Amino acid sequence: MKVLIVFAHPEPKSFGRALLDRSVQTLRDCGHQVVVSDLYAMGFNPVAGVSDFTERRFPDALQYDREQKLASQRHSFAADIQAEIDKLLACDLLILQFPLWWFSVPAIMKGWIDRVFANGTAYGAGGMRFDNGGLKGRKAMLVFTTGCFPAMMEPDGLLGQRDVILWHLQYGTFGYSGLQVLQPFVGWAIQYTDAAQRREYLDQYAARLRNIECEAPMATHALADFTPEWRLRADVEPCTAGHRRVV
Amino acid sequence: MKVLIVFAHPEPKSFGRALLDRSVQTLRDCGHQVVVSDLYAMGFNPVAGVSDFTERRFPDALQYDREQKLASQRHSFAADIQAEIDKLLACDLLILQFPLWWFSVPAIMKGWIDRVFANGTAYGAGGMRFDNGGLKGRKAMLVFTTGCFPAMMEPDGLLGQRDVILWHLQYGTFGYSGLQVLQPFVGWAIQYTDAAQRREYLDQYAARLRNIECEAPMATHALADFTPEWRLRADVEPCTAGHRRVV
Repeated sequence: MKVLIVFAHPEPKSFGRALLDRSVQTLRDCGHQVVVSDLYAMGFNPVAGVSDFTERRFPDALQYDREQKLASQRHSFAADIQAEIDKLLACDLLILQFPLWWFSVPAIMKGWIDRVFANGTAYGAGGMRFDNGGLKGRKAMLVFTTGCFPAMMEPDGLLGQRDVILWHLQYGTFGYSGLQVLQPFVGWAIQYTDAAQRREYLDQYAARLRNIECEAPMATHALADFTPEWRLRADVEPCTAGHRRVV
Repeated sequence: MKVLIVFAHPEPKSFGRALLDRSVQTLRDCGHQVVVSDLYAMGFNPVAGVSDFTERRFPDALQYDREQKLASQRHSFAADIQAEIDKLLACDLLILQFPLWWFSVPAIMKGWIDRVFANGTAYGAGGMRFDNGGLKGRKAMLVFTTGCFPAMMEPDGLLGQRDVILWHLQYGTFGYSGLQVLQPFVGWAIQYTDAAQRREYLDQYAARLRNIECEAPMATHALADFTPEWRLRADVEPCTAGHRRVV
């Protein structure tokens, strides 16, 4: 299996880096091919803008997603974007690893998504989304560390339920693009852990990765579950944290 | 009232810019003071890192939130961050305006949140969060344009319910910091609208802003609604899109 790990952490001595190193070693020991995009080390530019395209369809005013569509057809992305798209399309499993900042990814990783999950590549015209998304046939998972405790992300927890917090990433980004989503791996409240607990997290993560190919993806909805008016069909029960029946 | 509008759009000729201009004019006509942080025009750096602090408590390895805490006490942030914190603390209403990219804000705006909503300023030790958050006494709202139609963000819609999509921003960022959250203003499917529909959106937004001081914030939970174990108390009914009773 080919694994792309996109990693965002500003500190090379962090526990996040230890998790990354352990995952790379474990996956390679299992015979997988691993590519890492270390966004801070690369100095990755997260700001989508006019210089993202080597030619323009609408040079008068930037319509970012429409230029992405052309660039997807003509491979006319800026080189830093094309390099990441090539890695993404080559992978069987995408792992985004980061410290959870403001219930989401750090800005440098959001910019990787904005620029790399391009119209015409990850999704696009003609219903190319969800189970027909541009990245279908691949899997993805979030791996993150938190400052909070697990109870806080329970359905009745202080911060709200985990899969609502992660909705924009797991359903909105991964799912929308056709990726099958594996359960996240979470290192909880890392700044309050001791060395033994950190070793335990490293071991737990390695154990998961050794069997990652056998894991079933999280339940979600397919395009066929929705009516032509984009509402859940009457005969389909909501199965996600973000859908509910309108009474 | 003092209003801070943080704006992120890469194209000065966009409809988003027209919305921004109309909002500034309307709010000033009503006698409010308006400050705009136009992140693309400012060339705002969204990447949190070591250069965000003029002194360091832990120079050996970057612990970003702990350095933020020190910098909040000693005003030792980099100048670009301190300038934004000063604007934020001076405002009564914060508006984040942006095109919705991947169910969230563009990276340049996520970086504004990462760097400006600092530990010790927006939230912090001693339970400084939610109704005791660092920004309490202020209001906030999201204003965004989409590529999708309203039905898609209904509770049973293709993309999931709106307040789940926005959870990380409305509850996780605004609410966590003590901001009272007003209903978002949404310009739907802008690339499929004609000039008349765009004028209608501008007029609707202006009409809302003329009465914005009278709007009631969205329902949410207070810290006192949770047990010491961070779970909703048995006598409190969940009132948000992200909380539900564990059966």
